[in-house]
Amino acid sequence: MKTHIGVLGPNTTTGEQYQLGCEVGRCIAEANAILFCGGLGGMMRAAAEGAKSAGGQTVGILPGTDKTAANEFIDIAIPTDLGAYRNALLVRSCDVVIAVHGAYGTLSELAFALRLKVPIVGLHTWEVHRDGKADPGIHLAHTAKEAVALAIKLAGKK
Amino acid sequence: MKTHIGVLGPNTTTGEQYQLGCEVGRCIAEANAILFCGGLGGMMRAAAEGAKSAGGQTVGILPGTDKTAANEFIDIAIPTDLGAYRNALLVRSCDVVIAVHGAYGTLSELAFALRLKVPIVGLHTWEVHRDGKADPGIHLAHTAKEAVALAIKLAGKK
Amino acid sequence: MKTHIGVLGPNTTTGEQYQLGCEVGRCIAEANAILFCGGLGGMMRAAAEGAKSAGGQTVGILPGTDKTAANEFIDIAIPTDLGAYRNALLVRSCDVVIAVHGAYGTLSELAFALRLKVPIVGLHTWEVHRDGKADPGIHLAHTAKEAVALAIKLAGKK
Amino acid sequence: MKTHIGVLGPNTTTGEQYQLGCEVGRCIAEANAILFCGGLGGMMRAAAEGAKSAGGQTVGILPGTDKTAANEFIDIAIPTDLGAYRNALLVRSCDVVIAVHGAYGTLSELAFALRLKVPIVGLHTWEVHRDGKADPGIHLAHTAKEAVALAIKLAGKK
Repeated sequence: MKTHIGVLGPNTTTGEQYQLGCEVGRCIAEANAILFCGGLGGMMRAAAEGAKSAGGQTVGILPGTDKTAANEFIDIAIPTDLGAYRNALLVRSCDVVIAVHGAYGTLSELAFALRLKVPIVGLHTWEVHRDGKADPGIHLAHTAKEAVALAIKLAGKK
Repeated sequence: MKTHIGVLGPNTTTGEQYQLGCEVGRCIAEANAILFCGGLGGMMRAAAEGAKSAGGQTVGILPGTDKTAANEFIDIAIPTDLGAYRNALLVRSCDVVIAVHGAYGTLSELAFALRLKVPIVGLHTWEVHRDGKADPGIHLAHTAKEAVALAIKLAGKK
Repeated sequence: MKTHIGVLGPNTTTGEQYQLGCEVGRCIAEANAILFCGGLGGMMRAAAEGAKSAGGQTVGILPGTDKTAANEFIDIAIPTDLGAYRNALLVRSCDVVIAVHGAYGTLSELAFALRLKVPIVGLHTWEVHRDGKADPGIHLAHTAKEAVALAIKLAGKK
Repeated sequence: MKTHIGVLGPNTTTGEQYQLGCEVGRCIAEANAILFCGGLGGMMRAAAEGAKSAGGQTVGILPGTDKTAANEFIDIAIPTDLGAYRNALLVRSCDVVIAVHGAYGTLSELAFALRLKVPIVGLHTWEVHRDGKADPGIHLAHTAKEAVALAIKLAGKK
């Protein structure tokens, strides 16, 4: 089965953030992996658009009950009706996740990934501190290409 | 987006039941729809094998945490770790479901489909009675071909 | 820990059905068990009112996010935001369930209880048939008193 | 309905941490609120023991299927079988949460509480940083008494 790579990120983005998401999605498709995301707008749409631009496959794990809420770059939509629990389901579905920026939804996904031992690559995203130290479970990358290469490597080790 | 058709059924089957599941899966692929199922053995494997034999796409909504528990005919596996709740998620993900035989897991899926107004086609499966009458929400079919044709029609009306 | 007895039933009732629900709730409190229900109106309110009238304790497993949606006879409300999945959670929480009348939500609860091997007492509720025969997993009772006595007995055996 | 206060924390503790958890639980009971927790050991047991020592009521939202896994200070156990999703359910059930120390499970609960706008009091727990700044949604306290007083105040404002 192909590697499932999740892209986590906010549902609204600046133009620059959107561009970064597209590049991440494109690199995922070029690596012959399947893109998983939340299926809606912002970073989720960016990654899906990027993946489709390179002929990849996309899966959207939606919070609500309406499949048509998925953005136009989603091939397979799962309307979970799980609300906030769906963030945990998205993380569960992935061999590795890449967090690109992000708000509280992304933070909850990072926390679940840490807990469930799903490897994490971080691109300009949250840091979590305990006893004054950043948790080492979020592997930092600086470009889309670097992030996806790292993700593929971490998924292989899992 | 392509129609998502769920096949519900038991995780152990007789040879005849397995053959019927294969035919249902094949007809789904020939109708250019995506097969959704529970991803494991028995009727789930039969339908996935049938769909792949006709070049279709298959999604498995697994109860546990291990993607490799999916049968070999599943293209995209979602390891939900939702246990029994995953039956509701499977039904949620579909535009229409076809129940082929089935035990208590299938019964719970039928009940969720009735509740969530996901159309149901029944092939030799449960009947549910209230005040002495069978519920009309389960549309009966007698062959795989008839079941899938009816499912496509019901999904269109939804 | 006290026995957790779930009362399952429709969210609208006739006066006679409501009266029956009250009696079931009262008998549960008199048996020193805790009443679990869906926390809303109809049969759920009836059972909770009956339990409180006899000094019992009541827990409501709500589908939405708003604790104040619970009826006034609920002591502890769990606003699950699980929608239809909450029916499975309600069944999971109980040592035994009593279904009193009921629509599709109740049917889904019965199916989950059968699957999860939570014992079931049925009072004028659904029958489920396979191969033309009613499933023996639903133990029939004819009065509130009989239903609760049977439930206590089945919970003890589990 | 009484205020539901959740105590979040690790399932193993030092003696000092356990003592702090007991004091938090006791203060919750003295404030006439109901203690919610994950129902297992460590900080969850500490808070429940403290609450019972002051005559309070305790609810445990368990990850598994076995009610008897609850610690001996839990009055009402909800065996959710939701695994990691149960952390979100615990947060959903509360009017306010107090995080005392904690590992990744607690971090996921904090993230969900931030997302779901459930007020948070932090006692020696995680900090979450975005763009180099700690998120202000975690209100810091330094003693059990201060934490519970702040929690009651925040629950009132919600």
